[in-house]
Amino acid sequence: MMKIEGLIAATFGAFHEDGSLNLSPIPDLVEKLIKDGVAGVFICGTNGEGPNLTVEERMTVAEAYVKAVNKRVLVLVHVGHPSIAESKKLAAHAASIGADAISAVAAFYFKPGSVQNLVNCMAEIASAAPSLPFYYYHVPALTGVGMDMIDFLRLSEGVIPNLAGIKYTAVTIFEYQACLNYKNGRYNILYGYDEMLLSALAVGAGGAIGSTYTFAAPLYLKVMALFREGKQEAAQQLQLKLVEMVRCLLKYSPIPAQKAIMEMLGYTLGPCRLPLVSLTKQEAAALKVSLQEVGF
Amino acid sequence: MMKIEGLIAATFGAFHEDGSLNLSPIPDLVEKLIKDGVAGVFICGTNGEGPNLTVEERMTVAEAYVKAVNKRVLVLVHVGHPSIAESKKLAAHAASIGADAISAVAAFYFKPGSVQNLVNCMAEIASAAPSLPFYYYHVPALTGVGMDMIDFLRLSEGVIPNLAGIKYTAVTIFEYQACLNYKNGRYNILYGYDEMLLSALAVGAGGAIGSTYTFAAPLYLKVMALFREGKQEAAQQLQLKLVEMVRCLLKYSPIPAQKAIMEMLGYTLGPCRLPLVSLTKQEAAALKVSLQEVGF
Amino acid sequence: MMKIEGLIAATFGAFHEDGSLNLSPIPDLVEKLIKDGVAGVFICGTNGEGPNLTVEERMTVAEAYVKAVNKRVLVLVHVGHPSIAESKKLAAHAASIGADAISAVAAFYFKPGSVQNLVNCMAEIASAAPSLPFYYYHVPALTGVGMDMIDFLRLSEGVIPNLAGIKYTAVTIFEYQACLNYKNGRYNILYGYDEMLLSALAVGAGGAIGSTYTFAAPLYLKVMALFREGKQEAAQQLQLKLVEMVRCLLKYSPIPAQKAIMEMLGYTLGPCRLPLVSLTKQEAAALKVSLQEVGF
Amino acid sequence: MMKIEGLIAATFGAFHEDGSLNLSPIPDLVEKLIKDGVAGVFICGTNGEGPNLTVEERMTVAEAYVKAVNKRVLVLVHVGHPSIAESKKLAAHAASIGADAISAVAAFYFKPGSVQNLVNCMAEIASAAPSLPFYYYHVPALTGVGMDMIDFLRLSEGVIPNLAGIKYTAVTIFEYQACLNYKNGRYNILYGYDEMLLSALAVGAGGAIGSTYTFAAPLYLKVMALFREGKQEAAQQLQLKLVEMVRCLLKYSPIPAQKAIMEMLGYTLGPCRLPLVSLTKQEAAALKVSLQEVGF
Repeated sequence: MMKIEGLIAATFGAFHEDGSLNLSPIPDLVEKLIKDGVAGVFICGTNGEGPNLTVEERMTVAEAYVKAVNKRVLVLVHVGHPSIAESKKLAAHAASIGADAISAVAAFYFKPGSVQNLVNCMAEIASAAPSLPFYYYHVPALTGVGMDMIDFLRLSEGVIPNLAGIKYTAVTIFEYQACLNYKNGRYNILYGYDEMLLSALAVGAGGAIGSTYTFAAPLYLKVMALFREGKQEAAQQLQLKLVEMVRCLLKYSPIPAQKAIMEMLGYTLGPCRLPLVSLTKQEAAALKVSLQEVGF
Repeated sequence: MMKIEGLIAATFGAFHEDGSLNLSPIPDLVEKLIKDGVAGVFICGTNGEGPNLTVEERMTVAEAYVKAVNKRVLVLVHVGHPSIAESKKLAAHAASIGADAISAVAAFYFKPGSVQNLVNCMAEIASAAPSLPFYYYHVPALTGVGMDMIDFLRLSEGVIPNLAGIKYTAVTIFEYQACLNYKNGRYNILYGYDEMLLSALAVGAGGAIGSTYTFAAPLYLKVMALFREGKQEAAQQLQLKLVEMVRCLLKYSPIPAQKAIMEMLGYTLGPCRLPLVSLTKQEAAALKVSLQEVGF
Repeated sequence: MMKIEGLIAATFGAFHEDGSLNLSPIPDLVEKLIKDGVAGVFICGTNGEGPNLTVEERMTVAEAYVKAVNKRVLVLVHVGHPSIAESKKLAAHAASIGADAISAVAAFYFKPGSVQNLVNCMAEIASAAPSLPFYYYHVPALTGVGMDMIDFLRLSEGVIPNLAGIKYTAVTIFEYQACLNYKNGRYNILYGYDEMLLSALAVGAGGAIGSTYTFAAPLYLKVMALFREGKQEAAQQLQLKLVEMVRCLLKYSPIPAQKAIMEMLGYTLGPCRLPLVSLTKQEAAALKVSLQEVGF
Repeated sequence: MMKIEGLIAATFGAFHEDGSLNLSPIPDLVEKLIKDGVAGVFICGTNGEGPNLTVEERMTVAEAYVKAVNKRVLVLVHVGHPSIAESKKLAAHAASIGADAISAVAAFYFKPGSVQNLVNCMAEIASAAPSLPFYYYHVPALTGVGMDMIDFLRLSEGVIPNLAGIKYTAVTIFEYQACLNYKNGRYNILYGYDEMLLSALAVGAGGAIGSTYTFAAPLYLKVMALFREGKQEAAQQLQLKLVEMVRCLLKYSPIPAQKAIMEMLGYTLGPCRLPLVSLTKQEAAALKVSLQEVGF
């Protein structure tokens, strides 16, 4: 089964000023990410505003990424949706266009009421793309679904044959560590909070998925290198700088704030879709100042 | 603007055993509801498993209801979706097929962060069906979006020209009463907790939308009649019986439990879709016994 | 067992400017309340800032009220505390000074994990004052303990011999109605949200406990009278006015806001204790204006 | 200001079978902890069932620990209480008996509504023991008070002169790292989740407070040593074993489960007080088996 090492960038949605989908920034963005050293992209997830897109738009975005990436790095397609029927369509489509893996959050209107129910839901989605590795996207802060992940792995056995692992976006590092080591590390547990990457490395993380890897991957890769070289203090200092960057974002709505950063870097991704709201020019300027204050 | 009086039945989804959509029970169900005296149907909402359906399926269900109802009562189509773009498609479709009104929950992955943001989201949806009355579907227990509804009405002025009112599914009756009386009763505030109907009547409710009106409308209409005749004690006794019925349901997952009741009444609506799970035969039998114990 | 009808005023704490306890306003306040027609006082509860007082201070306040009331109306003493051992001291003290009943919230640091556990906790407290009627104070919004109250009544049988009923401070009127009717109305279920009094009356409430009865009892008694005379519309109009008053309070921290109202009425109760913070003069003035706008 | 390095054991309450306080196990327990290499004890906190004790009992326990420890390691006394007036009594008492530091959770009935309000509350408590270092005990999972801790440190300046740092019991390691580095490490930020100790070390933690240090300190000290020697993999392996131990506890109510472990080790601390409930003999036996399965 797939075992991703390194960083996967959870990319942002791109829209024209009128809110319609804009595919044109994708090729440049992909080149930048490959140059930055990422192992892959995670698309149509939270940061990609997947839930704000129609199913057709999600498919269009997936096609654009698969084409732009052209097998040089991995393309993981998020297919989570409140309707499992829609998820299955997205999953089958991802397989048909040559994506490398799929991932899904738990249904988030009607919510799974038990780990077994969650497993059954994910099994149904994963079955629509049996040839692709499947990652459960665990993000309780957004879905409100906070099940025990060891129980999830245990109950998935035999039920989700293509389960590759978990996109683990939660701060409970001790459970994360337990998942990493479940059945001698059989599953690929990718860590999802960029601002805690060093802590995840400390307990054995090999890979991570996150939004800030879209614009700051080289710094995080440096954290990983320093950690592996045993340079703990230098790793801490660099991670601290990244924490301070993330704390700047958190003063605003994080996704629009990060799109403002992309704009600063020359990547015009356009507005967000409601209920997300782009930063005002004043907010973007203030964000720039506060980022400079912490060394960016 | 529309001012609905009486009861609107929030109907249930119907599926074949394999989980595919089953439209065949709709005509009979509609006849029953009209005979029961409801003022309309609310479709593809929570009880209708709208979030479990694809957009195409939701459109198909809406068409089937509009056709079966054939203008004899009202058809309200729920168009809420995490993607406002999908909601707009559903809204425009509802208008095109001759539905009487639309309604939408707040987006529930990315959630509105302020009342103004919520108003802006609803305005965008409502604008896709400008000829139809629009009802905001306030259901904080499911969406996690619990804004002040008076502020919502106030900020909607001029922004949602076709705002007819609110499907108010919350237990905060005092706010409900304030909404009923906002601007001398300008808006149609339909109450959403069947088990508290008498309390809503006491503060002035004229209409209500709820799932149990699909199978028990005549009893609730009797509560309304008794209340209006000033027979408080008799109204209380009957409402109490209905509370006891609802408490039986709440021992189970409420939507599957109610579909089991429909089955007892001869309406075979089939299984639920994941993450909802149908009652087992044992559970359905136990539910039947407990309903009989409280007089049904 | 005790069966309170009418309104119980949940009185406010009184402090000197330096934050020390001030007993001097109690006699005048008691006279006002008796003149206003309340059936009793509920002291050292939420509104009385009981949790902000030391155990000794709570005893002192209880003594002052028992003395000032002098058996003319009922004195209910709140004895809830995170430490059941402290609660038992307060309960025994209340019995020793001639209070009429005691009441306790669930422990709120370590929280009961099941209805049975909650019953066992309350049984231990109630056993320290076996001669006094005991009311469980159900207030999930503050304690985070939201158990099924019918289960509570059922499991209390034989375990809390002096259980008189529940101070039911929750908006779930349907459960409230079920409790009122449990075992043919065996228990005294006092409703706790003043702004929903009419809705509670509609399902059979006979008594209520609340903070705004400290300054607006005559209006609420009028609501009760109108309801009983079958004058539904007039009752609604008056309840609406009271809802609008409460909505004014809710723009501020409710307890300090109500103490500002008491000040307007000539009852100087002094500041609140941290973490509560008194309204500023500007806030108090703005509150006064907004109250006048809704007819007070 | 105080800068604690190493591990502080958050000790458990000890009671006779009838629930009354039992001081007799304290001296032996203290000897064990000193032998185990802890830097101090944290008493009457969450694990010490502080909130279940009366104020007098808390003072008695504090005196017993100060006496037993006799200045060989540090004694930190938790003085948090919903009543700040009671907290101040506990703080002054701790100073009078020669404790080394005090700590307090946020008030947890009425809860601070802003960081400034929280600072003002803590300032009032800390002012009652001005000679003692004060640690804010940040434990949002229990108090429901989840403020930004950098803002807390910033607003405390000049307001809490004896602020030594924070007992940081939250999983948000990135904020923890920011606190560690605030003003060049001016404050002593002690980490509070034992099962994430290695992750905290990775971002620079020097000290920690936790319950499992009462019975497993030598293993955690070994984690710390391995980390400092750069033996990352060995540190991970040992931390993993400790995570598995903690996961065994979390199947039960954690405090009673840990008291059962103390019993296995020969330290009879008696039952818990309600609402906490001791493990049954069967549960304790099952816990023992599951601990053995993970190597204890």
